Amino acid sequence: MIVLRSIIFVLAFQFLFSSFLASQTHKEKADLLITGGIVVTMDSTRAILDDGAVAVRGDTIIAVGPRNELEARYAASQTIDAKGKLVLPGFINGHTHVPMTLFRGLHDDVTLNDWLYKYIFPAEAKNVNEEFVRWGTRLAAAEQIRGGVTTFADMYYFEDAVAEETKAAGMRGVLGETFIDFPAPDNKDESEMLAYTEKFLKKWQGDPLIHAAVAPHSIYTCSQRTLQDSATLARTFHAPILIHTGEMKKEWEDSEKQNGMSPVQYLDKIGLLGPDVVSAHCIFVDAYDEKTLAKKQVGCVHNPSSNMMIASGVSPVAEMRAAGVAVGLGTDGPAGSNNDLDLMEEMDLAAKLAKITKMDPLALNAKAVVEMATIDGARALHMEKEIGSLEPGKKADFILISLDEPHAVPMYDIYAQLAYALKGSDVETVVIGGRVVMRDRRLLTVNEEEAIAKARQYKKSIAASLGL
Amino acid sequence: MIVLRSIIFVLAFQFLFSSFLASQTHKEKADLLITGGIVVTMDSTRAILDDGAVAVRGDTIIAVGPRNELEARYAASQTIDAKGKLVLPGFINGHTHVPMTLFRGLHDDVTLNDWLYKYIFPAEAKNVNEEFVRWGTRLAAAEQIRGGVTTFADMYYFEDAVAEETKAAGMRGVLGETFIDFPAPDNKDESEMLAYTEKFLKKWQGDPLIHAAVAPHSIYTCSQRTLQDSATLARTFHAPILIHTGEMKKEWEDSEKQNGMSPVQYLDKIGLLGPDVVSAHCIFVDAYDEKTLAKKQVGCVHNPSSNMMIASGVSPVAEMRAAGVAVGLGTDGPAGSNNDLDLMEEMDLAAKLAKITKMDPLALNAKAVVEMATIDGARALHMEKEIGSLEPGKKADFILISLDEPHAVPMYDIYAQLAYALKGSDVETVVIGGRVVMRDRRLLTVNEEEAIAKARQYKKSIAASLGL
Repeated sequence: MIVLRSIIFVLAFQFLFSSFLASQTHKEKADLLITGGIVVTMDSTRAILDDGAVAVRGDTIIAVGPRNELEARYAASQTIDAKGKLVLPGFINGHTHVPMTLFRGLHDDVTLNDWLYKYIFPAEAKNVNEEFVRWGTRLAAAEQIRGGVTTFADMYYFEDAVAEETKAAGMRGVLGETFIDFPAPDNKDESEMLAYTEKFLKKWQGDPLIHAAVAPHSIYTCSQRTLQDSATLARTFHAPILIHTGEMKKEWEDSEKQNGMSPVQYLDKIGLLGPDVVSAHCIFVDAYDEKTLAKKQVGCVHNPSSNMMIASGVSPVAEMRAAGVAVGLGTDGPAGSNNDLDLMEEMDLAAKLAKITKMDPLALNAKAVVEMATIDGARALHMEKEIGSLEPGKKADFILISLDEPHAVPMYDIYAQLAYALKGSDVETVVIGGRVVMRDRRLLTVNEEEAIAKARQYKKSIAASLGL
Repeated sequence: MIVLRSIIFVLAFQFLFSSFLASQTHKEKADLLITGGIVVTMDSTRAILDDGAVAVRGDTIIAVGPRNELEARYAASQTIDAKGKLVLPGFINGHTHVPMTLFRGLHDDVTLNDWLYKYIFPAEAKNVNEEFVRWGTRLAAAEQIRGGVTTFADMYYFEDAVAEETKAAGMRGVLGETFIDFPAPDNKDESEMLAYTEKFLKKWQGDPLIHAAVAPHSIYTCSQRTLQDSATLARTFHAPILIHTGEMKKEWEDSEKQNGMSPVQYLDKIGLLGPDVVSAHCIFVDAYDEKTLAKKQVGCVHNPSSNMMIASGVSPVAEMRAAGVAVGLGTDGPAGSNNDLDLMEEMDLAAKLAKITKMDPLALNAKAVVEMATIDGARALHMEKEIGSLEPGKKADFILISLDEPHAVPMYDIYAQLAYALKGSDVETVVIGGRVVMRDRRLLTVNEEEAIAKARQYKKSIAASLGL
């Protein structure tokens, strides 16, 4: 009996092992397989797969399709079960100033002028250094990953430190060093800015995550020469140009007075506009400007929270989209103008703000704002070949969203649920360039406790520096 | 040695035990003590205690003060450590239709007319019964408790079932049975509505949590007789009257045409307005209406999400507040007009909507919207003696909010943090009438999994009933 049992055991084992080998040998290798979720691809057909899967090799998506097909085709070293969850391209925060997390809530509810000149400029002069920028970026990375943001476009100072921290957090960034016609916390004049930025652009060339960029602040803080010099530098290195455009009424009025034309037309006239430019805000743009932006393939970024909070005005988002402009979504800085980095809130707000402004509930719908947070955000950053949708060949940037909260059910329409009901806190798992940076709400690339503790310390020193 | 040790042990034990008894005997008894949080009282001085405490006996707050004082004074059978957290009065959702959670996201981005007549009225006719109302209320209770709402004002059908489920969830409710001049899912005509509502009002008289109310839907769906009959019934039982007022342009235009006066003036003329009325929306009200609302002590409830989503218009919140009207905040129904029950989002939106509408960043500040969600919400519901602030003698309705998330730091201003940065998902613990209904994000009074599963089932049958 014992002998017989042993023989049966050995035979059974051999059979199972050879079956296993056979099943493995004809499978292609993958590094990561996401299985069983509702895959919202945001591809050109806006395909949604009810029981889908995504296969990843290295930092790239190699297949998107039905779960059973991909499970049969790929043997993955890591598998994440997404059953009952949404799988989406990571959100793209098209405009922000991440180190300003450390100024979050420092004097809201004041005029922009008071905020800038009484509070933020003095606070920046007294507190912003490379160390500040590093801690602010770490805190922002934690917050953005938690909310499903995988790529963000930033404009600040010490942008090389922002880039190092962004890379360390495993996030994708379009990171612009600021040019401005007054002494900045990092560089005191244009020649310093040019030297710093050239070094910065050289350093990050070819990096898989970091797109070093040039950020002339705006037409009201930069001379024509600063604008043109910074653009020339950017174009020498094929780097993106990030700029605030048509954000404020005074900017538009002054441009009409001084240049005899709108901010957009002025930027076009001096050779700044092109398919490498990302214009934040675009509130004071008219139909002619919209055509120019579309023709020059400028990407625009709408920041509804900021525009409402500062009372800047309402961007003609629907009109720009209709004119063929790529319009993304941004949070703007998390101080004075939001005060967080939650792109899902911006989706909700973008739709609701357009509706109430036009007194038309059809003005901008749920699908449109999800597009703005994903594929259109990628187009606005001129990165649509790289990110923004779940398609083979694109970078493996995606998020898993839980549907197990009371506010997540029932779900009649996925886009409506994303825009109007689901929250940043529903994001469970985040993958950027094939690397899992958050798993089941646990951050894997940022020391969150340390960043939070440091932010509390900074609060004390910043408040003291302002005599608060 | 052993004997000596034993003697020392016995003496030490006696000493400790008698000290304990002594410390206990001169302490007053409490049922619950919250210690060590930042206590945001929302009392008349808007006092904030940095290391505060709240003592509760039965369903009532018996003391609010510094932690060390209250710890010395009270011996509590249950203590909750709130160190590092905010302690706030529970949020008050002044206007909603909770069973509509089951229609969440059912056809958004359409005109109100299409939404009502093509989708919601048919969906209600085919699906709403007492069972539906019970499950929708359970789901809404779970969602609202998670977001820190402790009291809500509701208008729907089968309101007695809403009341039973609200009480079972341990929530406080002002629950209005709807009067409307067409056959409703529960009552087919006015006489049925009167009979149902009289029974409903009688049943809940004196209940500590449930305030049964009467809800004539609006002037455009109720005849003068229906409005007056329902108000008379309410006043017989000292019950609140909930009504949609000045929500839609057409309502206002029709009232001007048919009655020669605004909706508010018409309601006043027919004797409806008084210190027992809660008017939802109040968008189409002018300066004269504001004075009337203030003089008649009508409470108003602002619903920014809904007003934006349906593109109804913008309520003159700052003007109403200046005129002395108590203005609360509401989510409105979670279908077609929001789509959730998140009062913290409404705070953020109320401030931002006022600012952008007036192009003035000072139009409505963070403190004002926190007031609207708490003490002013209580005033709008005529319950300011009972709830809305943390003061001895008031009901023990309060919430603990975590400050341990990246978006919660640094904190320069508590009101700004609440309005613009903190989220419903930061609410950790919720106490209503002294009963802990959520502890560390675990719901204790609602079977959430069951409610979520049921919502998914309802989605299938509702979609099928509409041929979707």
